[in-house]
Amino acid sequence: MKRPFNFSAGPAALPEEVLQQAASEMLDWHGSGMSVMEMSHRGKEFISIARQAEADLRDILSIPADYKVLFMQGGALAENAILPLNLSRGGVADYVVTGSWSQKSTKEARKFCQVHVAATNEADAFTSVPDYEQWQLSDDAAYVHVCSNETIHGVEMHELPDLAALGSKAPLVIDCSSHIASRPIDWSRVAVAYGGAQKNIGPAGLTLVIIREDLLGHALPITPSAFDYQIVADNESMYNTPPTYAIYLAGLVFQWIKRQTEGELTGLAAIEARNVAKAAMLYDYIDQSGFYSNRVAHNARSRMNIPFFLPQDSLNESFLAGAQARGLLQLKGHKSVGGMRASLYNAMPLAGVEALIDYLKDFAQRHG
Amino acid sequence: MKRPFNFSAGPAALPEEVLQQAASEMLDWHGSGMSVMEMSHRGKEFISIARQAEADLRDILSIPADYKVLFMQGGALAENAILPLNLSRGGVADYVVTGSWSQKSTKEARKFCQVHVAATNEADAFTSVPDYEQWQLSDDAAYVHVCSNETIHGVEMHELPDLAALGSKAPLVIDCSSHIASRPIDWSRVAVAYGGAQKNIGPAGLTLVIIREDLLGHALPITPSAFDYQIVADNESMYNTPPTYAIYLAGLVFQWIKRQTEGELTGLAAIEARNVAKAAMLYDYIDQSGFYSNRVAHNARSRMNIPFFLPQDSLNESFLAGAQARGLLQLKGHKSVGGMRASLYNAMPLAGVEALIDYLKDFAQRHG
Repeated sequence: MKRPFNFSAGPAALPEEVLQQAASEMLDWHGSGMSVMEMSHRGKEFISIARQAEADLRDILSIPADYKVLFMQGGALAENAILPLNLSRGGVADYVVTGSWSQKSTKEARKFCQVHVAATNEADAFTSVPDYEQWQLSDDAAYVHVCSNETIHGVEMHELPDLAALGSKAPLVIDCSSHIASRPIDWSRVAVAYGGAQKNIGPAGLTLVIIREDLLGHALPITPSAFDYQIVADNESMYNTPPTYAIYLAGLVFQWIKRQTEGELTGLAAIEARNVAKAAMLYDYIDQSGFYSNRVAHNARSRMNIPFFLPQDSLNESFLAGAQARGLLQLKGHKSVGGMRASLYNAMPLAGVEALIDYLKDFAQRHG
Repeated sequence: MKRPFNFSAGPAALPEEVLQQAASEMLDWHGSGMSVMEMSHRGKEFISIARQAEADLRDILSIPADYKVLFMQGGALAENAILPLNLSRGGVADYVVTGSWSQKSTKEARKFCQVHVAATNEADAFTSVPDYEQWQLSDDAAYVHVCSNETIHGVEMHELPDLAALGSKAPLVIDCSSHIASRPIDWSRVAVAYGGAQKNIGPAGLTLVIIREDLLGHALPITPSAFDYQIVADNESMYNTPPTYAIYLAGLVFQWIKRQTEGELTGLAAIEARNVAKAAMLYDYIDQSGFYSNRVAHNARSRMNIPFFLPQDSLNESFLAGAQARGLLQLKGHKSVGGMRASLYNAMPLAGVEALIDYLKDFAQRHG
């Protein structure tokens, strides 16, 4: 049976091989007689699964030895509060607002610290990234927070800011939920990277936090123990029961990433090359179509989330119904932006983008 | 292939039929062409799954219409902080300490309110429940918190306290992580019930909160939005992305519970009768063995978690190795108590308890 192509912004499509492996191991993981869901998180079987997942993630993203990997819960929205609880020390934090997600981050941070909006592109409806040189960074910020890929607005920071070169001594924190593991991360510029797993990594309910060790140990006294980075790190993410099955699935995805090849490239390099090609193909078609439009500045267009518009909103329903009939799923745009959105995460094959473009052409021809 | 019997305290054994169904639906849920993990939480497919799960849980536990069911994340340890953030209003809360879990609850609550320990049985090493008549309840407590089944110490409140009869006007909050869905809940006595899913309900990473509506809307201003009960309720547990796959699995378990029969009994009544029979069989054998011992007061013995001791700790390793060889898994006691622990959650069949007793007899004969 041919599976449809699923363009959901998240929870999102997972690699078919990963789902097949999970199904085949559901009742008995590696002869243990248990489903991974049924294992004590303190038993040797699950500990081996969690350690392997962490090791593979470190390998894929070249995470330096002085960074901790934390497996947490609550998604990026919970992390928006957990982060200032752990890092702000009740002082000032700089936030750059480039869309819905970074805006939500400021709302949570204001509960725990003074939020200074260092830059925003709200005036152009979040269709660009404010020029780094223009950011008004504080002298004494506990950290600078950006959302490096705005899932709803389709805006991505392709090169992360070098805060030191911009005159800030603060550590850079990136909410990279919707493009983590789609490309490398430059750790010389990033002190903390966090994100929900439900885009490129695994099922919803798992949050990754990758944090430089020197930032641990400064949580406000009101921080719940389960969300205190130091406590989570000291307990290897098992202070409270972790989302064991989601960690197992993420581990399968990491192994899938490591197996990928594209010409001479392997692993994350192969994944990135494929993501570049997929996004270019879709943007190129949209731009030359004379029918569809994407409003994001070219240098800020996301490889992962591509919002686009039909010439009239009145065509939207019929567009979506026709897509569904061709096995092109979950293309409806976010309600705050409207139109359509195609999310091209790692698990979306080039064939899915080709099928989408075929449909776009056909629909434009019939309605153009 | 015969599956081993898994006595893990949690994450714990799940019904085999549930795992089989999950495996068979892994790549394509009901012809949707998607795994449940791949569905947008805002799409009609997943919304139907979540609504059915809630409806089935309401049915099983006879949850009154004026109670909300919230699907959250972080487990009971996170909820220990989230609860006082939502209910304490920064005032006084009464806590009854009957073991490790209620003790941990007080630690988190002290971050947000004044904790008054109304009763504790710490003096007898947490092997009983303090007599309800002796509880020193405050006049002005925002709530009274108990852990109605202590997973580590094996202590269960078989009849919940009637706070009004004890002279308190406060709502009763129960942490029922390790016996939820093993027996009915008397809602005339309970205002809030919460628990992690990883015992009787599904995979780790899902937390259930069942709360009387009049208690919503009083969160402290520092409460993270993702953990504000009012916000979670207003958004039908989809303010942040919920742990979708765990909710789906919980829904399969709820349907399994509804299908159970035991003589004339069906659903939760059948489950409870089976749990009573399983626990009685094991306690009876332990008590008359003259070899094994359980130290918990008879009226407080948990149906779910049965700690027991061999006559010498030096036998423990050989006991566990022999159990493993017979397919009796995860019997090691919690490190804070020592000895052994057999958890007999809903998914443990009577045959598992019989197999355990056979082994206990054999081991005692060889070492007695």
